[in-house]
Amino acid sequence: MEAIFQGYLDKLSRLDTQAMFNSDFLLTWEKTDQELAAVFAVADALRYLREHNISARIFDSGLGVSLFRDNSTRTRFSFSSACNLLGLEVQDLDEGKSQIAHGETVRETANMISFMADVIGIRDDMYIGKGNAYMREVSQSVRQGYKDGVLEQVPVLVNLQCDIDHPTQCMADMLHIIHHFGGVENLKGKKIAITWAYSPSYGKPLSVPQGVIGLMTRFGMEVVLAHPEGYEIMPEVEEVARKQAVSSGGSFAKTNSMAEAFADADLVYPKSWAPFAAMAKRTDLYGAGDFDGIDALEKELLAQNAQHKDWCCTEELMKTTRDGKALYLHCLPADISGVSCEEGEVVASVFDRYRTSLYKQASYKPYIIAAMIFLAKCQEPQRMLQALFERGTKRWLK
Amino acid sequence: MEAIFQGYLDKLSRLDTQAMFNSDFLLTWEKTDQELAAVFAVADALRYLREHNISARIFDSGLGVSLFRDNSTRTRFSFSSACNLLGLEVQDLDEGKSQIAHGETVRETANMISFMADVIGIRDDMYIGKGNAYMREVSQSVRQGYKDGVLEQVPVLVNLQCDIDHPTQCMADMLHIIHHFGGVENLKGKKIAITWAYSPSYGKPLSVPQGVIGLMTRFGMEVVLAHPEGYEIMPEVEEVARKQAVSSGGSFAKTNSMAEAFADADLVYPKSWAPFAAMAKRTDLYGAGDFDGIDALEKELLAQNAQHKDWCCTEELMKTTRDGKALYLHCLPADISGVSCEEGEVVASVFDRYRTSLYKQASYKPYIIAAMIFLAKCQEPQRMLQALFERGTKRWLK
Amino acid sequence: MEAIFQGYLDKLSRLDTQAMFNSDFLLTWEKTDQELAAVFAVADALRYLREHNISARIFDSGLGVSLFRDNSTRTRFSFSSACNLLGLEVQDLDEGKSQIAHGETVRETANMISFMADVIGIRDDMYIGKGNAYMREVSQSVRQGYKDGVLEQVPVLVNLQCDIDHPTQCMADMLHIIHHFGGVENLKGKKIAITWAYSPSYGKPLSVPQGVIGLMTRFGMEVVLAHPEGYEIMPEVEEVARKQAVSSGGSFAKTNSMAEAFADADLVYPKSWAPFAAMAKRTDLYGAGDFDGIDALEKELLAQNAQHKDWCCTEELMKTTRDGKALYLHCLPADISGVSCEEGEVVASVFDRYRTSLYKQASYKPYIIAAMIFLAKCQEPQRMLQALFERGTKRWLK
Repeated sequence: MEAIFQGYLDKLSRLDTQAMFNSDFLLTWEKTDQELAAVFAVADALRYLREHNISARIFDSGLGVSLFRDNSTRTRFSFSSACNLLGLEVQDLDEGKSQIAHGETVRETANMISFMADVIGIRDDMYIGKGNAYMREVSQSVRQGYKDGVLEQVPVLVNLQCDIDHPTQCMADMLHIIHHFGGVENLKGKKIAITWAYSPSYGKPLSVPQGVIGLMTRFGMEVVLAHPEGYEIMPEVEEVARKQAVSSGGSFAKTNSMAEAFADADLVYPKSWAPFAAMAKRTDLYGAGDFDGIDALEKELLAQNAQHKDWCCTEELMKTTRDGKALYLHCLPADISGVSCEEGEVVASVFDRYRTSLYKQASYKPYIIAAMIFLAKCQEPQRMLQALFERGTKRWLK
Repeated sequence: MEAIFQGYLDKLSRLDTQAMFNSDFLLTWEKTDQELAAVFAVADALRYLREHNISARIFDSGLGVSLFRDNSTRTRFSFSSACNLLGLEVQDLDEGKSQIAHGETVRETANMISFMADVIGIRDDMYIGKGNAYMREVSQSVRQGYKDGVLEQVPVLVNLQCDIDHPTQCMADMLHIIHHFGGVENLKGKKIAITWAYSPSYGKPLSVPQGVIGLMTRFGMEVVLAHPEGYEIMPEVEEVARKQAVSSGGSFAKTNSMAEAFADADLVYPKSWAPFAAMAKRTDLYGAGDFDGIDALEKELLAQNAQHKDWCCTEELMKTTRDGKALYLHCLPADISGVSCEEGEVVASVFDRYRTSLYKQASYKPYIIAAMIFLAKCQEPQRMLQALFERGTKRWLK
Repeated sequence: MEAIFQGYLDKLSRLDTQAMFNSDFLLTWEKTDQELAAVFAVADALRYLREHNISARIFDSGLGVSLFRDNSTRTRFSFSSACNLLGLEVQDLDEGKSQIAHGETVRETANMISFMADVIGIRDDMYIGKGNAYMREVSQSVRQGYKDGVLEQVPVLVNLQCDIDHPTQCMADMLHIIHHFGGVENLKGKKIAITWAYSPSYGKPLSVPQGVIGLMTRFGMEVVLAHPEGYEIMPEVEEVARKQAVSSGGSFAKTNSMAEAFADADLVYPKSWAPFAAMAKRTDLYGAGDFDGIDALEKELLAQNAQHKDWCCTEELMKTTRDGKALYLHCLPADISGVSCEEGEVVASVFDRYRTSLYKQASYKPYIIAAMIFLAKCQEPQRMLQALFERGTKRWLK
């Protein structure tokens, strides 16, 4: 066995992943450090197998159900790639953008789609207080269904983006960072700036900045969250970040200055989002069916946004980062000034310089999702990876 | 081999299923008693294999085509689960809710989608006199295509609901009933009430009550069909039910009293449907493009419905059933009073008490569909099940 | 090994297909004669395997991405059949009918959908100068992504119809012709008339007539292109046809008389299309957002069309062909006079007589697509086909 693959297995053998078996992946901060490390190791191992044309199918048949409350090409492809890699066929359930159903309907639908489902991927990020709660409702419903003998297996849930966290995105970001800096052990003391940036649209989800501070404060990094006044994120997640920074020996700081955040940063993640308070208000308006109110709120937010067009990732700002060469991150698609919009989150020359890096960042997502499923479906992940390697089934007969 | 699985094979070995090979499944009453028994036995056997993590794939590749003229989450998932279980990938053909095409178009489309199709599942229940006829047209088209050397194989058809019957639903209901009462031999003399119930919507398909009386009169049960005056179903299907009741040593009766139907019933199946005559009229209006007429008809039907709000499955009614404990059945989703609507088919306390039972009832559908495909695709189903068991391919490498 | 299958392998062994490995299939005239012959041989071999119930899966897992800018039942099913035959799961990307995106967006999207894509099938035939260019942009993007380490494999592109060519259709047509005449060596000197025909709709793509003359001039046939004045096709493709006719020892002629084209023809392919100049104008109007202009153009074109209702494939015309028995071809669906429209491309009696032949013509398409993928994915196609035969995995356990 090649040393590099053996390295992943060795890493795994030192990690306790027992609690991941048959478990959902909903928030990174519900997982232990060892569990997160296991996701990274399995993702790397699965990528190794794929690169070496070795099949990673652990399913001969079975369904992966995708449940999106939003159009989403990228997430859809990442999820179906991950399912396909492991041998699951994807069946989509599109419920439209309507306010999510509750109670009876959720419980019933969850069971009706799960008779042969091994995994359910849900994206539901549109309403504060709803998305993650919905996922837990689905999870409880199918677990009850399994207990009652309705379902032959427990379909595990993967959070493909909710109102609180975006674990598959942030874990993919993190794996990219780990590889960029040559190992997780090199991240201690690195400064990462997750900052708001101007976009001509409004209402972009909070799950990315929240997911970033909720995850990246666990590796001893100096995490700085920057945004104009009024663009606060969920206080509960900030609290999580603060505690984790302490435990990990890093720090978590906030500022209203993009310049301050960028100064000497090793990594920058400039991205638009909507104010938490406004999004919570929007959810209430939506619940009350007050569409005039929603229109008024949208106008107000766009006007508020327009006051902060200077929050843009420029060459000048990039020069102030560590050696002028901070790693620029984005979850894509970015609003690029003069390209996808007049004024946006980043200038074209910065984006262009990091394009390949950004695409690589995105390329980890299918493997992260596959690793989450793998760890929820294999009781002994290390042994299984070794068995797949030894089986050596060619993915593609060239 | 475990005794329980061997039991299914023994059952199968006593049944003549030769005529099922390469045949469609369109109406239960076109099948012999032995053929229905074979569907139940194969469904049980496939479920056994799945529960024991043994792959039931009989296809290495191949397509299952789903053709729905209606949104349908549940049927879609049941069909794709069944196909996936056997190794077929589903390809959807959504033709929208438009009046179905005829002649040239059907013949041509049927062939164009079938070059690599092993099975076609069709749901077309919206217009009286159309759905089942359409299925037969598709079937004839692809059989001709096979004879002409256009197609490499005959795709068999499975009726996923038409204007006349709903065989996959009613067969799943029946398998649930068989297991509930501990065997088909225990059904003789049991009273089942299939009764109309009030729903605030209108135009629910007739295929469920028709399918129920068309199937359940074959097992020696006392089948009672109850509905308010004016909610008659297809007379042809009643005629089928009457004859079958005689042959099977049971009975088939009609009443306009829900109370009478429930009295001492062992099973109750209260459910809304639209009057057959009205649905036939609607089909004519639709054919004539008379949308004002359709609106007027809808209003008329809703007004008619509103006169029968007392047709609800209440606790009082349930108390009048055998020991107050009749098995409550529904094809789901139900209109539950105070939950999914103000006044509906059933009160919440009754529904809640039977929830797990109802979900189990639904859980048989993917296996019933898979069994129908299996029997149409395996010339010696017993031998094939045994071979799958002996092959012992794990569905999921845990 | 049966002689017929061995024959395909022998044919392949004499053909140089090295340049096809990892290559796209965008225009037939970019491929050598040997490469086209290889596609036919592999298509025949794959069909042989399927007919003999031998699996042709060369993929254990992997994705085929379909990208349609148009509704397309037939092409969708052909592509997914081809992918399924080889072991790839199809993931659709529906971008709607909007003007295609450019630059940044294409490059990014192409990479984001390709992390696990082995093949991308694109249909984009709506705008002159756009479809084929878009395909090349996608191809360059993913090849760059592979070089940059973003993608683990190069997804190859198959042109499922563009503004210039329709290679999967015309290659399928050609394979049908080859079989009809008992071998490609019998085509020399055969006269084929590809002629415009009247249809009550307007704006049918030019890719079929262009694809036909761009392909069929390579086999020594007498190719005649006929259309009313004003229905010219792309001059560049006519130039290709002229040159190829010379090389192949055949001819390429143009006429404005349907009768002249049909006279003594061995094959006829009467079909509606829109004038090239009008389609180019339409693309400009669309680009300028001039929807009134588009409406006006449509009216103009329909009026122009209506002057040529006599361009119909009648029994009288068919009688003038070789022995009155020319092979009638169509890509389907055809506009049939008195059936699908009042006056159309062909009379019902002619269409009916050739129906089975037309369906067979269509039946080659999934195999042609599969052969294109196969040749782009197997470095030694002959050896691989032999290996599949010897492996002998049953596609379907009957």
